[in-house]
Amino acid sequence: MKAEIIAVGTELLLGQIVNTNAQYLSQELAAMGIDVYYQTVVGDNASRLQGAIELASQRADILILTGGIGPTQDDLTKDALAAHVGRSLHIDRLAMDQIERFFAGRGINMTENNRRQALVIDGSTPLPNETGLAVGLALAQEDNFYIVLPGPPKELKPMFDQQAKPWLLQHALTDEMPIYSKMLKFAGIGESLLEDRLLDLIDGQTDPTIAPYAKEGEVTVRISTKAPTEQEAMEKLNAMQGQIQSRLADHMYASMDVPIERIIVDMMADRGITLSAAESCTGGMLMESITSIPGSATMFVGGIVCYSNEMKEKLLHVPHALLEGDDAPGAVSAEVAEVLAENVRMITDSDFGLSVTGVAGPGYSERKPVGLVYVGIAQRGQKTEVFELKLNGNRETIRVRSVKTLLYRLWQRLVSTDRATGESKDQV
Amino acid sequence: MKAEIIAVGTELLLGQIVNTNAQYLSQELAAMGIDVYYQTVVGDNASRLQGAIELASQRADILILTGGIGPTQDDLTKDALAAHVGRSLHIDRLAMDQIERFFAGRGINMTENNRRQALVIDGSTPLPNETGLAVGLALAQEDNFYIVLPGPPKELKPMFDQQAKPWLLQHALTDEMPIYSKMLKFAGIGESLLEDRLLDLIDGQTDPTIAPYAKEGEVTVRISTKAPTEQEAMEKLNAMQGQIQSRLADHMYASMDVPIERIIVDMMADRGITLSAAESCTGGMLMESITSIPGSATMFVGGIVCYSNEMKEKLLHVPHALLEGDDAPGAVSAEVAEVLAENVRMITDSDFGLSVTGVAGPGYSERKPVGLVYVGIAQRGQKTEVFELKLNGNRETIRVRSVKTLLYRLWQRLVSTDRATGESKDQV
Repeated sequence: MKAEIIAVGTELLLGQIVNTNAQYLSQELAAMGIDVYYQTVVGDNASRLQGAIELASQRADILILTGGIGPTQDDLTKDALAAHVGRSLHIDRLAMDQIERFFAGRGINMTENNRRQALVIDGSTPLPNETGLAVGLALAQEDNFYIVLPGPPKELKPMFDQQAKPWLLQHALTDEMPIYSKMLKFAGIGESLLEDRLLDLIDGQTDPTIAPYAKEGEVTVRISTKAPTEQEAMEKLNAMQGQIQSRLADHMYASMDVPIERIIVDMMADRGITLSAAESCTGGMLMESITSIPGSATMFVGGIVCYSNEMKEKLLHVPHALLEGDDAPGAVSAEVAEVLAENVRMITDSDFGLSVTGVAGPGYSERKPVGLVYVGIAQRGQKTEVFELKLNGNRETIRVRSVKTLLYRLWQRLVSTDRATGESKDQV
Repeated sequence: MKAEIIAVGTELLLGQIVNTNAQYLSQELAAMGIDVYYQTVVGDNASRLQGAIELASQRADILILTGGIGPTQDDLTKDALAAHVGRSLHIDRLAMDQIERFFAGRGINMTENNRRQALVIDGSTPLPNETGLAVGLALAQEDNFYIVLPGPPKELKPMFDQQAKPWLLQHALTDEMPIYSKMLKFAGIGESLLEDRLLDLIDGQTDPTIAPYAKEGEVTVRISTKAPTEQEAMEKLNAMQGQIQSRLADHMYASMDVPIERIIVDMMADRGITLSAAESCTGGMLMESITSIPGSATMFVGGIVCYSNEMKEKLLHVPHALLEGDDAPGAVSAEVAEVLAENVRMITDSDFGLSVTGVAGPGYSERKPVGLVYVGIAQRGQKTEVFELKLNGNRETIRVRSVKTLLYRLWQRLVSTDRATGESKDQV
């Protein structure tokens, strides 16, 4: 099976946004055993869009169209595909109900153009949009399979994963041996070092295949195999996972695609352990990442963003002598990270207290270099740990890496506590 | 002049990397007044690559090829282009010298395949690579202009900017007028309502052109025009901006592409006004977005994430009677939003205090529906404002929209204060 991804939108051709949808879909299709031969980007122009669909329908079996299904005049994707397949469009009643409820719930008058978001092609399968208003669709005609998805990634991803993928498996991939994958997640290690440790496995890979890739502060390894049954696939995948895990036990935190904060929230919630945080240079990013996880309310009590030195003193009782004066270590120091972690834990009466203080840049602070960050972990009845980090990158990268490194250290601490107390190691 | 960008590399089709080169080149070409009609991605496959070049040479004047010019067997871009134009390849002496010096300087033996990186097409202009080893090239033949650039962005960007762009200006763009654009940014209004208010302008657009698009919680409108001089362009753009602004004065916060938090940070820093925040359901996201802006340290002092009711009482002195009991309004209420904003402002002794409390889901809380959020703005010496929001979407969307709505309301407050005190309205 060959696929082509057609992203529709003049904003892509003007370089206003980057085509992350093509990357996401390419990864997903590769994991399903579908070969992507072309990615195409075309603007909001009816004839060029129809031309791109025509061409793709000749050179690919599966066409995935993204974008151009919003409410405005230049949203033309469904019209162009309808013209290509020679069918009409109609309003999908369920999608229209959802749109009407949306506007009624907000007490806003719905403008007429919003009805366009409920359009589907006659004879297609509507793909509900759980995070937006524009309905997608899936259609089989002659030798081609067509999928239409919204442009915003937060709408596209759940619609592909929960609606389009199952439809493709059922309609397009009936004769193929299914492909099964596992995602192994690693923290506290870079992609190149991880690859180095797995080099012989990667070089010799045939089945399962091994594909590492890095996101900010995390590395993912996808292992995949084709097999007639899930059981056979899992036997092969679990054997490979065992080999990889034995080499990287200190870094592998999950065997499914979840961020490390999800594992931490689950571990702490299970054990009835509570957490708090004091953040300086990360300004709330650490707490934001923890509270992004549903269920975090059971283990995360709260915390303090102490951006100024005055707030470090006032809200977290950091001694003035640590912050200012000729011999003071200053706000960006191991000493202050230690006090911040311990005091936020005590103030909130939680089991663990985390802290971050550093120079995210641009520009140094306290004559300390950009990228110097201290992170602390205080625990009730235990010695406080502080780690010095020297990070590269811009302000955003340094903040993200500070958060990810601290979460990795907290995960290590939880795992080693479990080992010491004889609890089984948590791996989802 | 029409251009097409062809990115070459199987790693793009597998989703291992995202095509940021296409975004960079599209931006640069748009700024030069060149229309990009298509972006294409094709793998390291000789016949499909030649097919993509053939097609692009028919539908575009300028072809920009990126990637596939390294030392390995699957680096085929120059061979494919040479075959397309019917010319031979030869070693460029200067490029070869650079490669030999690189290996000699590191004391490494140069493997023979590295010579491939010095290949250029007969009759083309070599484009030196200042940050890598593979030489690029520029070639005019019949009605087409061809540019070949390396794949790594750190090699591609300087080569395009310093070599390819001047070559294009000299050879391809001798008769063209440059294009100029402005980005107008809006908050507190959806894309479809904004478009509705501008419908006659958009429908009648010829010059300048008007293109709206939405990101999470913000809408951008790009207005563009071609003109012989920047001054003439700006006169046309400013006239159009004036028309748009007069219809959407309450929503237009900037005439350049910046998030609303950037405008707020700048306004407050300029006026010497300080800010603090108390967050419940957003868990730090509000403070994270403010502190993502360089320079926020001068106006943002800090704040408190009070995720549990206990922390609302303990850290922010919310009366127990408001939180719990049969007649209590509960944590998600206008009353609690008001107390949170006022108390965080007083505790931190800042000029403004913000608050967010709501149900981000999944699952209701206090028998209140997902998406019900209260945001508050307290100001020294002024009456506290609280806004009730009814938001749709998943947990992430509800949190983002809560933050963006609160920031919009704060911006409105700052602007109206300026108006009342006679300061000029800030627009970057």
